Amino acid sequence: MKLEGIYAPVPTPFESGGAGCIDFAAFRENMLKWAGSSLDGLVICGSNGELPFTSESERAFLTSAAKKILSELKSSKKVITGAFQQTTKDTVSCCASASRAGADAVLLLPPHYFKGQGERAAARFFMDVADASPIPVVLYNMPANTGVDMSAEAILDLAAHPNIIGVKDTSGNMTKFAYLASASDRPGLDFSVFCGSGNYFLPALSLGAAGGTLAVANLYPESCRKLLDAYRNGSTKEATLLQRRLLLASDAVTARFGIPGLKAAMDRAGLYGGPSRKPLLPLGKDEALKLEAMLEEADLDSFETWRL
Amino acid sequence: MKLEGIYAPVPTPFESGGAGCIDFAAFRENMLKWAGSSLDGLVICGSNGELPFTSESERAFLTSAAKKILSELKSSKKVITGAFQQTTKDTVSCCASASRAGADAVLLLPPHYFKGQGERAAARFFMDVADASPIPVVLYNMPANTGVDMSAEAILDLAAHPNIIGVKDTSGNMTKFAYLASASDRPGLDFSVFCGSGNYFLPALSLGAAGGTLAVANLYPESCRKLLDAYRNGSTKEATLLQRRLLLASDAVTARFGIPGLKAAMDRAGLYGGPSRKPLLPLGKDEALKLEAMLEEADLDSFETWRL
Amino acid sequence: MKLEGIYAPVPTPFESGGAGCIDFAAFRENMLKWAGSSLDGLVICGSNGELPFTSESERAFLTSAAKKILSELKSSKKVITGAFQQTTKDTVSCCASASRAGADAVLLLPPHYFKGQGERAAARFFMDVADASPIPVVLYNMPANTGVDMSAEAILDLAAHPNIIGVKDTSGNMTKFAYLASASDRPGLDFSVFCGSGNYFLPALSLGAAGGTLAVANLYPESCRKLLDAYRNGSTKEATLLQRRLLLASDAVTARFGIPGLKAAMDRAGLYGGPSRKPLLPLGKDEALKLEAMLEEADLDSFETWRL
Amino acid sequence: MKLEGIYAPVPTPFESGGAGCIDFAAFRENMLKWAGSSLDGLVICGSNGELPFTSESERAFLTSAAKKILSELKSSKKVITGAFQQTTKDTVSCCASASRAGADAVLLLPPHYFKGQGERAAARFFMDVADASPIPVVLYNMPANTGVDMSAEAILDLAAHPNIIGVKDTSGNMTKFAYLASASDRPGLDFSVFCGSGNYFLPALSLGAAGGTLAVANLYPESCRKLLDAYRNGSTKEATLLQRRLLLASDAVTARFGIPGLKAAMDRAGLYGGPSRKPLLPLGKDEALKLEAMLEEADLDSFETWRL
Repeated sequence: MKLEGIYAPVPTPFESGGAGCIDFAAFRENMLKWAGSSLDGLVICGSNGELPFTSESERAFLTSAAKKILSELKSSKKVITGAFQQTTKDTVSCCASASRAGADAVLLLPPHYFKGQGERAAARFFMDVADASPIPVVLYNMPANTGVDMSAEAILDLAAHPNIIGVKDTSGNMTKFAYLASASDRPGLDFSVFCGSGNYFLPALSLGAAGGTLAVANLYPESCRKLLDAYRNGSTKEATLLQRRLLLASDAVTARFGIPGLKAAMDRAGLYGGPSRKPLLPLGKDEALKLEAMLEEADLDSFETWRL
Repeated sequence: MKLEGIYAPVPTPFESGGAGCIDFAAFRENMLKWAGSSLDGLVICGSNGELPFTSESERAFLTSAAKKILSELKSSKKVITGAFQQTTKDTVSCCASASRAGADAVLLLPPHYFKGQGERAAARFFMDVADASPIPVVLYNMPANTGVDMSAEAILDLAAHPNIIGVKDTSGNMTKFAYLASASDRPGLDFSVFCGSGNYFLPALSLGAAGGTLAVANLYPESCRKLLDAYRNGSTKEATLLQRRLLLASDAVTARFGIPGLKAAMDRAGLYGGPSRKPLLPLGKDEALKLEAMLEEADLDSFETWRL
Repeated sequence: MKLEGIYAPVPTPFESGGAGCIDFAAFRENMLKWAGSSLDGLVICGSNGELPFTSESERAFLTSAAKKILSELKSSKKVITGAFQQTTKDTVSCCASASRAGADAVLLLPPHYFKGQGERAAARFFMDVADASPIPVVLYNMPANTGVDMSAEAILDLAAHPNIIGVKDTSGNMTKFAYLASASDRPGLDFSVFCGSGNYFLPALSLGAAGGTLAVANLYPESCRKLLDAYRNGSTKEATLLQRRLLLASDAVTARFGIPGLKAAMDRAGLYGGPSRKPLLPLGKDEALKLEAMLEEADLDSFETWRL
Repeated sequence: MKLEGIYAPVPTPFESGGAGCIDFAAFRENMLKWAGSSLDGLVICGSNGELPFTSESERAFLTSAAKKILSELKSSKKVITGAFQQTTKDTVSCCASASRAGADAVLLLPPHYFKGQGERAAARFFMDVADASPIPVVLYNMPANTGVDMSAEAILDLAAHPNIIGVKDTSGNMTKFAYLASASDRPGLDFSVFCGSGNYFLPALSLGAAGGTLAVANLYPESCRKLLDAYRNGSTKEATLLQRRLLLASDAVTARFGIPGLKAAMDRAGLYGGPSRKPLLPLGKDEALKLEAMLEEADLDSFETWRL
């Protein structure tokens, strides 16, 4: 499997009653819509899928459902499943069940609660899991959530492992990203570097990113695609203007308002957002108004004809 | 329940083979020894008990085993159980099972993977769980592990809840600790402030801490007791000298070498330490030598007659 | 010179008109009052003296004025002068002029604008200056202002230099402070460890601090003295209660409201505070009210009879 | 004045003896070479010019010398002078003397030693200086050196001031950069957003940067120019490859080895680098070898024909 293009890290839909059960009907509805978009793939139970709030079996079930729908529609979109668990053993188990459920690859955070053993322990963890996983592993550097920022050196050491196929970097550090993306072109190295936020998708592309897993691509995959195409066609001015619009939408559904913001924006866009699992809280009124204003200003909805 | 005195956050013992199963016989052996010490209580499945690596049922089982042993020995030592889970619902469930297993209280981290909603979401989480928990709640501020540092204001707002009886603060911030400890003496407020590290137990006592939950108290409870008594008797010089010795042992089994260090030190002391669950790695040779040197320099073993 | 006891880092008084000239008459008035207190010494042009806003000649002039007043009054109080400049050469020059002005020692920050060469460059800087300075050097670790946090190891390496007599640590890190204070008692090592904030003066004393340089001691030296005496007499309860009251006053004139807060509190206390040099701004109205409330709650004024 | 294109923040050359005197002959030699390059401008006494180590008169003298040489050569290159001093008054004075010396604009850090009053004090500082300065002001956000990271909101509020013409942002935060660059295109707003590091020059261009002030442009201005042209011509692949090569050179002379690295690289390139003022130390042997290896790997020297 080659990691390339635009992926949406899909939110996990929960029933509106507040009991926190997964709403599989809503998931199916969303999937049917996304299947009609130009997305290259979907991430199930990544951070935006409330990864730490989901169990191994929930992850497997959602993966299986997603693959089934894609298969019914003869879609070639890929599915990557968030498989991180706190222990190596549970993570290996989660890779196995994701594989059985049909995932094309797994996405793995580094261990992060106990930070004292640093990159030595993280490297051992990734090697152990990559050795054991039946499907390829994508590393996931997400310091804002984990408090751990993997170095370019550590990531590139792991890139040599035949079952580690890429990294999703959400550090926002362009120096690091540049070192990673440069190395990814080394002859013989099969390793993709993915941008983890729509806030800086174009800067990442300019450094040679193979693509991105972007929360904003749940809502605006065609806008992301236009940006990607504009950049690759050398229409740099157009790309700049698209990135600026994308920034507003992306920032609103990530750093500013988080998953509750993303879900509110999905409800607004005719997808199912619904509530998050607690302890996440719904948006307050002022937050909802600011979110709406940012999406209005981004003014990207007209590109997204697949939503209809 | 009134939180007071010296608690040991006991490590969770795993079988030596590496399969990661809990070694209940070893747990019993350790418990029998600790029961003979002057500890006021034990914390099961706190950070040092590899909290994030243990399941709800493991936590309940260990709690139940601990209570049974203490009851057999007619010991009045308290048992507090780490009950944090990533979702509010799972945390409430864990409080209930800890209660059924006999825990006197639960210890709760704030939510920390998604940080965007800050103290508002944390407050809601703690209120929801405290409302639902059959047993009292102790807040646990541990920024080195969680990346979240609760403010004194937020903690003191929660202190008013009748089912929240205290906080274990491991921030190391003495200004915060002083504000917390000052407030804990307000008439009508039943709230204890506990120090979370033996590195600064005496400084915390000097500000009015009700006690401490100290990793080093797994090994050196009588040393901690002597320090506490010296301070309370006004033997401040003796207390200073004891704190300096305790620092070496405490730092070695926390910030320097973490849980693998604590477990190695337990093996050295005639308790069962054993391996940690992966991704935690055993100490390297140099680390083991440095640990030994720090414990030798601390020279506290002679106070610990209960180990024999 | 042996660094011991309670020092006030005195603010530099500026004329009320806003032109930023030093008000030497006001300085003399303040000095005459402080001379009547139980302070062991004064720091001229430390952080609270707006160190980075003062020139070498201003520092020398204030030092000289302070020594003259103390000499007139046959006071044995010590004077330490802030001598840090951005370059090694200018710092050496400032040490020389402080010495000529009569300073008993100089206080020195580590280099901090260019951080890339870390503790190696800092060590070289301190060694060069200590070699050249005619009077002893006190190290000054102040990470909140400099962004550089010196390690205990680096500080203790420098402690061996015969012309480096102590450290003022304002990191608030009690583990570091404990390592420093422990080492300061090594036989043959003439090195004092001073606490840099009244927020945690008692915790620092409990670890063996030789004293403190405390912004709050400009206003409440007798309260600090009572705390010190209570602690040394083993009246630990009294010490705890005094520390809690001191915390409110200390926090108000440091972290909360900074030098403008300290100066406003001095005006309130019958000393000359006056304006700060810009870019520092005067307190806003709400800040002034909060400051007043904190000082009222601290309720320490009655101890300070020297102010009359 | 419109801030646009590629600027080199030139190092301040000191005599090789170690006394720390400015080597004006060397400065002239360097200037004559840079005048033959395609640089749009030079920054005198910016961070790379050892700003905090230089006096107001040194800054004015270097500015005047630079302008004189450019005038002799009928060069239209601009000169911006670092005018930050610790107080508002000294900064205003420095702006005036830079203006008298012929500077086209001044570059200003925010106040940063006392951080408690935050953006309110910084805004007042910039407004006061911009009101008083005879020449335009460029804001300079450089958190790695100052410990202060100005928000996009604060910067854009200041952008409305008629005498504030741009910002050099060296935070590396692409979300912030995107907000700044987006706003800089608002009709009626005359405000340029400059990238402050060659490590991410292309990402910044992709967001609409007007140019950059790049340490690496002291050595590789034509390489920077080629990158800029490639990007603007839509040759995005070429731009990516150039950025990757530039990264190695840029990183080596900034984050990795700092000003001593930059000066060593200048000596290597036939320009005068020489020593830095202490406390900066020369490169160690291993550092020099690593620097050489990185510059070799970057392999950009052949573009720089102006050096001959």
